[in-house]
Amino acid sequence: MSEIRIVVDAMGGDNAPGEIVKGAIDALNERKEITIILVGKEDKVKQELGKYTYDKNRIELVNATQEIGFDEPPVMAIRTKKDSSIVVGMNLVKSQKADAFVSAGSTGAILVGGQLIVGRIKGVERPPLAPLIPTTSGVSLLIDCGANVDARSSHLVQFAKIGSIYMENVVGIKKPKVAIVNIGAEEEKGNMLVKETYPLLKECKDIHFIGSIEAREIPYGKADVIVCEAFTGNVILKLYEGLGSALIHKVKEGLLSSFRSKIGAVLIKPALKKTLKDFDASQYGGAPLLGLKGLVVKTHGSSKSLEVKNSIIQCIAFSEQKINEKIKEHL
Amino acid sequence: MSEIRIVVDAMGGDNAPGEIVKGAIDALNERKEITIILVGKEDKVKQELGKYTYDKNRIELVNATQEIGFDEPPVMAIRTKKDSSIVVGMNLVKSQKADAFVSAGSTGAILVGGQLIVGRIKGVERPPLAPLIPTTSGVSLLIDCGANVDARSSHLVQFAKIGSIYMENVVGIKKPKVAIVNIGAEEEKGNMLVKETYPLLKECKDIHFIGSIEAREIPYGKADVIVCEAFTGNVILKLYEGLGSALIHKVKEGLLSSFRSKIGAVLIKPALKKTLKDFDASQYGGAPLLGLKGLVVKTHGSSKSLEVKNSIIQCIAFSEQKINEKIKEHL
Repeated sequence: MSEIRIVVDAMGGDNAPGEIVKGAIDALNERKEITIILVGKEDKVKQELGKYTYDKNRIELVNATQEIGFDEPPVMAIRTKKDSSIVVGMNLVKSQKADAFVSAGSTGAILVGGQLIVGRIKGVERPPLAPLIPTTSGVSLLIDCGANVDARSSHLVQFAKIGSIYMENVVGIKKPKVAIVNIGAEEEKGNMLVKETYPLLKECKDIHFIGSIEAREIPYGKADVIVCEAFTGNVILKLYEGLGSALIHKVKEGLLSSFRSKIGAVLIKPALKKTLKDFDASQYGGAPLLGLKGLVVKTHGSSKSLEVKNSIIQCIAFSEQKINEKIKEHL
Repeated sequence: MSEIRIVVDAMGGDNAPGEIVKGAIDALNERKEITIILVGKEDKVKQELGKYTYDKNRIELVNATQEIGFDEPPVMAIRTKKDSSIVVGMNLVKSQKADAFVSAGSTGAILVGGQLIVGRIKGVERPPLAPLIPTTSGVSLLIDCGANVDARSSHLVQFAKIGSIYMENVVGIKKPKVAIVNIGAEEEKGNMLVKETYPLLKECKDIHFIGSIEAREIPYGKADVIVCEAFTGNVILKLYEGLGSALIHKVKEGLLSSFRSKIGAVLIKPALKKTLKDFDASQYGGAPLLGLKGLVVKTHGSSKSLEVKNSIIQCIAFSEQKINEKIKEHL
């Protein structure tokens, strides 16, 4: 068992540094094969660390005096804030002092930093951001949800290959089913990009392409790897979050509408909670930015310690399975 | 009160002709200002009509011997099946023997027929399909969900104007808020199409443009008119349907998981049912194909009589408010 070194951005997200440090400690205590490098404002992180007991040999603190806000233009922020937790943390991955970087900070800055600092694997045209989304039968990988919109068909073919490698080796799904998001099942349907990409995916030997997937079928887990251009991916991901929470909100409101349903609500609470947990994205850790020379994982800005912990743990399989070497081989 | 003549495709959809005829009769009995022309196979439609009592002076039956299937290539079907219920029905609108056409048949054939037979209003570049979608605070118009993907920015500007007219006059929302679907709130975010369209919408005097809307905010009704290109619109609409039903399925399954929750489920049933009804698209009728010389309404292929009835009734306000004349004025 080789040691896996994971950098955690202690300053990123709405609940930093408290929940981030807690998540890091929880991951450290759960998995013995990792060591963690916390990057952030030394005094603040130290104060949080003081609340826990843990193996001090497996955690390190690296000071970073700056922070990158959610509303800062990403390219400018990465270029000028050299002592921000994101830039300092990514440089540790670049210089191979760490295997992975986990952050709940600005998505834009993480995407830009991943490309500019950590760098792309040779042959990767565009590193996709690929979150796992819950379905009625498990999880699917939605690839790409990044910031680089207006993709070309060659990008989408790479997403299909990279996504298949990830699902097979990190999530453990043998021969993952790959589908392209479309507005109908037939091959002749779609916009220009999809029509151009479909035959290329069909010819692809090293993936299990099952054709088009309509958005209606996504929540039922019809495909393991859902390939799409980033604008579409972003719409799917955000609608997933928004519609899920809106429906739950509506149902809860409805349950409080009468005395009878209030009593019922008390009785169903445990079962409902479990069901909703199954459909809660935070169970599955963060979204990896794939195709980089190291692993970069973006977790929700609103992440609590559980999601931070799961995001850290997800780096273990990624590293052990040597995903980046497999990506290099297959592109 | 002037008479409004509505053609109903008796053969379209999974539940034709039974549910379609029932929906037509229900609409007829509910609203005195309409007359209905049922188009379809005479013997079959007559048989269904025989089940009901209604004002025989306000219903007419027009025979059409052919049907267009869901899997037929639309352009070919419209061109060759001259005696199909869709072609016969749309010709009645074209020749101004009727004001509107309602069908649960093939979306593709309805979209193609609308353009080729009924024809576009002068100045309308592309007729958008615009369903109402439920939100936590009411309904929003999602425009465009049609089959014509890869739209230009000038199309989207027209969608914004047409959608505003529809929401203001048919749904009754004063000064409807218009937003463009985007992957971030800032003006510089988005794909090429959105970046090109945003400033045009901003300049548009006759709409109330509020900027970008992220997919996460759509279910909360942040905007009344949600403008997007048809591929994106289709993904949003289908995911809305799919995720809603998947979540309900999961919740129901969860409620049957223990004795305690089963009892609770019985108690919450009425409240839950009401809540889900609020979020059920069929409450709001079908999706109008806007910008044509007559009104064409597409209802779900799986429509039952309630949705058919609501789709017919929705034609009344459209006709009374002279939407097409307002569209002509504003483009």
